[in-house]
Amino acid sequence: MPPGAGTSCVCFRVRIHTPNSRSRFPPGLALVRLERARASASHFLVHSGCSGGAGHVTASGSRDRGSARQHRTTCRRTASPALGACSRSRTMSALMKMEDCRKQIATELDRVVDFWLKYSHDTVYGGFFTCIGRDGKVYDELKYVWLQGRQVWMYCRLYRTMDRFHKPEILEAAKAGGTFLRKFARVSTGSDQLKCAFCLTRDGKAVKVQRTIFSECFYILALDELSRVTGDKDMQLEAEQMMQQLIYWVREDSSGLGRPQLPGDVPTNGMAVPMMMLCLVQQLTEGRGQEVVQKYRELGRWCVEQILRHIQRDGTAILENVSLDGGELPGCQGRLQNPGHALEAGWFLIQYSAEWGDEELQRTAIDKFVELPYQHGWDKEHGGLFYFLDVDGHCPTQLEWSMKLWWPHCEALVAFLMAYSKTKRPELLERFYQVREYTFSHFPDADSGEWFGYLTQEGKVALDFKGGPFKGFFHVPRCLYMCERILDDLLANKD
Amino acid sequence: MPPGAGTSCVCFRVRIHTPNSRSRFPPGLALVRLERARASASHFLVHSGCSGGAGHVTASGSRDRGSARQHRTTCRRTASPALGACSRSRTMSALMKMEDCRKQIATELDRVVDFWLKYSHDTVYGGFFTCIGRDGKVYDELKYVWLQGRQVWMYCRLYRTMDRFHKPEILEAAKAGGTFLRKFARVSTGSDQLKCAFCLTRDGKAVKVQRTIFSECFYILALDELSRVTGDKDMQLEAEQMMQQLIYWVREDSSGLGRPQLPGDVPTNGMAVPMMMLCLVQQLTEGRGQEVVQKYRELGRWCVEQILRHIQRDGTAILENVSLDGGELPGCQGRLQNPGHALEAGWFLIQYSAEWGDEELQRTAIDKFVELPYQHGWDKEHGGLFYFLDVDGHCPTQLEWSMKLWWPHCEALVAFLMAYSKTKRPELLERFYQVREYTFSHFPDADSGEWFGYLTQEGKVALDFKGGPFKGFFHVPRCLYMCERILDDLLANKD
Repeated sequence: MPPGAGTSCVCFRVRIHTPNSRSRFPPGLALVRLERARASASHFLVHSGCSGGAGHVTASGSRDRGSARQHRTTCRRTASPALGACSRSRTMSALMKMEDCRKQIATELDRVVDFWLKYSHDTVYGGFFTCIGRDGKVYDELKYVWLQGRQVWMYCRLYRTMDRFHKPEILEAAKAGGTFLRKFARVSTGSDQLKCAFCLTRDGKAVKVQRTIFSECFYILALDELSRVTGDKDMQLEAEQMMQQLIYWVREDSSGLGRPQLPGDVPTNGMAVPMMMLCLVQQLTEGRGQEVVQKYRELGRWCVEQILRHIQRDGTAILENVSLDGGELPGCQGRLQNPGHALEAGWFLIQYSAEWGDEELQRTAIDKFVELPYQHGWDKEHGGLFYFLDVDGHCPTQLEWSMKLWWPHCEALVAFLMAYSKTKRPELLERFYQVREYTFSHFPDADSGEWFGYLTQEGKVALDFKGGPFKGFFHVPRCLYMCERILDDLLANKD
Repeated sequence: MPPGAGTSCVCFRVRIHTPNSRSRFPPGLALVRLERARASASHFLVHSGCSGGAGHVTASGSRDRGSARQHRTTCRRTASPALGACSRSRTMSALMKMEDCRKQIATELDRVVDFWLKYSHDTVYGGFFTCIGRDGKVYDELKYVWLQGRQVWMYCRLYRTMDRFHKPEILEAAKAGGTFLRKFARVSTGSDQLKCAFCLTRDGKAVKVQRTIFSECFYILALDELSRVTGDKDMQLEAEQMMQQLIYWVREDSSGLGRPQLPGDVPTNGMAVPMMMLCLVQQLTEGRGQEVVQKYRELGRWCVEQILRHIQRDGTAILENVSLDGGELPGCQGRLQNPGHALEAGWFLIQYSAEWGDEELQRTAIDKFVELPYQHGWDKEHGGLFYFLDVDGHCPTQLEWSMKLWWPHCEALVAFLMAYSKTKRPELLERFYQVREYTFSHFPDADSGEWFGYLTQEGKVALDFKGGPFKGFFHVPRCLYMCERILDDLLANKD
């Protein structure tokens, strides 16, 4: 295909991957691949509107790969004859940028994994330290159950799906974390229900129980993923049992969570609950066949419906809390926006829409849950995403509203890159690069590894620890893992 | 007494005030008083070490006035012959500075009272709006019980003890607030106990109940003070009954608060509990005679003992949480410092020490609870007091740790001025002026009145509302009220 000639763009895929395939390109092959991509002079990245995109590379399965491939093999469009040397140069430049980005992300993932392998394992009592200072020193021995579960999940996911992390030390750490969780996380609260603690002492004594479902969510996530690695059917069964308990609390009767019933405490639809439930549906069904998929199909749809109710103000805003029937709630609670959360919901929805071939949902996910939160949430003055906002411009009452936290930026990276991979709309890739620029120039600690989690509005490090009660081995590695895989697919599809 | 001659300093008091006396100097008299003070050329403020200080002018009684006066009439010391024109000039300058300060504070108190009178009254459902924006607009109608109780208390205190606030509109507002509280604050939680809600809807429906004692504390504070204004004995009795419930929760059995008993949740001595209990003892006993004083005497001593256990690290630090036997707790919880809280405890202890004539306790209060928290908590780079610190220099896990909040500065103003009034140590007055300089140049809103509550570490307004879930009509007016009264006494004692 001679450069500069009028061409038709053929979106195609050379490599077909089976579900759960591991990372396909050892680092040494990256350059070779890039050279091949250059030689092919594909028009990759220079036009938009090809909605097929790269294969679905996600944390929860790859069921969409077939249809994506089919789309790409049939999608042809005529490129402008004006595309010439200049365009080719831009193409090459864009490819190199993407390749550089992939390298940066892969390197960063290695560094982050190394940090937690080195500093977080409690070899005496099991489980993981999560309060880890700037230089890796444990500054508190409390063990937060959310973070224990997330770390088990992340280790297993890396071990199971990426060659370079398929190492005994990662498997052993995950298993030790799982053992600790199963031994200590569940607490007796005087009923037969399966409530998990929020926080444990180093040796596993319950310190605090939250009246929410989230400790249990991460318990399920951990056990299900660990059971996939170990083949432990009992463990998988326990995850399923806990899921049934969760469904009961969320959809039937929440009194077991321990909140007193108060006349002014109107039940609300907070974004976190259907998001986490959807995440669990994707986790539990991934690659497990039609029977399981059908078992959770209705729940998945319910979750999506609940999430979509957060589109408010005639479609111009995502609000964090709405009434059960999808109306706006009064006061601060009703006006609250959490851009990072909306962006995370966005890529959950993109995943779901790919899984079920729902193009309308994909458009909604990208328009409403990826683009709107960015438009509202990006700080035009200092860069970065605000933590909280009030849709009417009042000052949020959360003291940290204007701070820049690591995790919304992680979610934004995944959301924009996934949205781009599905649509090839160049402005989505541009947003990804913009968020990446801010993220990588502000959060990673070049000296001691891992990322700072909490910056001031102006971008100064405000809290310098690497792990804390809500920051563990999760958002950073999940983001890097997912972005690396999506970039792999994008690059692989161009050679 | 000729200027420049060797003199003996006689600390004396001209005016003796009865307990509960109202503000003694209408604004017009201030200048006259200052002129008389200048003419007398007293050596006020130019030497230190006179520990008698001004009379005890506090929110909770004036029982120490007699002994303070006795001390001052016997305290004589020889001043240096070098004290001459220069010294006299300094004295005049110091007096003028203090008079200016008193004026500034009185004016600010008027402005703050006006703000809340204008914007916070709910004339439909009763009680007070507390979520009030920069310009006075209500941005959320939720009613926080802490703040309802505090506002009732503050209105009554002003009405009862200061002539210029002895106005029907303030009394009516306090009574309306009391009615709302009594009608709605107490919730049925399935037991016979007297639990109060944390938050109510505008029309009084309970939204949230905390598993702590603080809503109840402010309920007692409100009802006791309101009963003093209205003479309502039933109301006073209700406050006493609630107090008995509180004592039972704190000293006998806390299970009625609703926290599950968990093996890792070791009972701790958090500073807030004995502080609040001591505050209530002072409130309930003030001016009520020996029978009531004796009734709460042991509890008061217990509170002081509990507070003193927070002196840790060989007397070099005040820690916010300690074990029940006064040992240091592990981890972040044990290392936490809250300078504003320690300073508030400081002036509670100074009050108590004055009431019981305990000079050793006064020294401890000033050395440990006023000076240490300032030394640890003052930001040498940007000024202002940090919100939280870790005694070992780790980064606190509270996202807002480095922010400058209004209330620690209020507590510091009261603590340093009260400490100075008791000791006449000039460095304490200097600290007061230093905190005042930061406070008045950062927190008050010259445009719309009242104070901003939350600044960044660098001193920029981070949250611009005037009232929020934890900021109401309390710390600012209490601070201004107490400082005005202490300054009145200091100035009055020099003419």
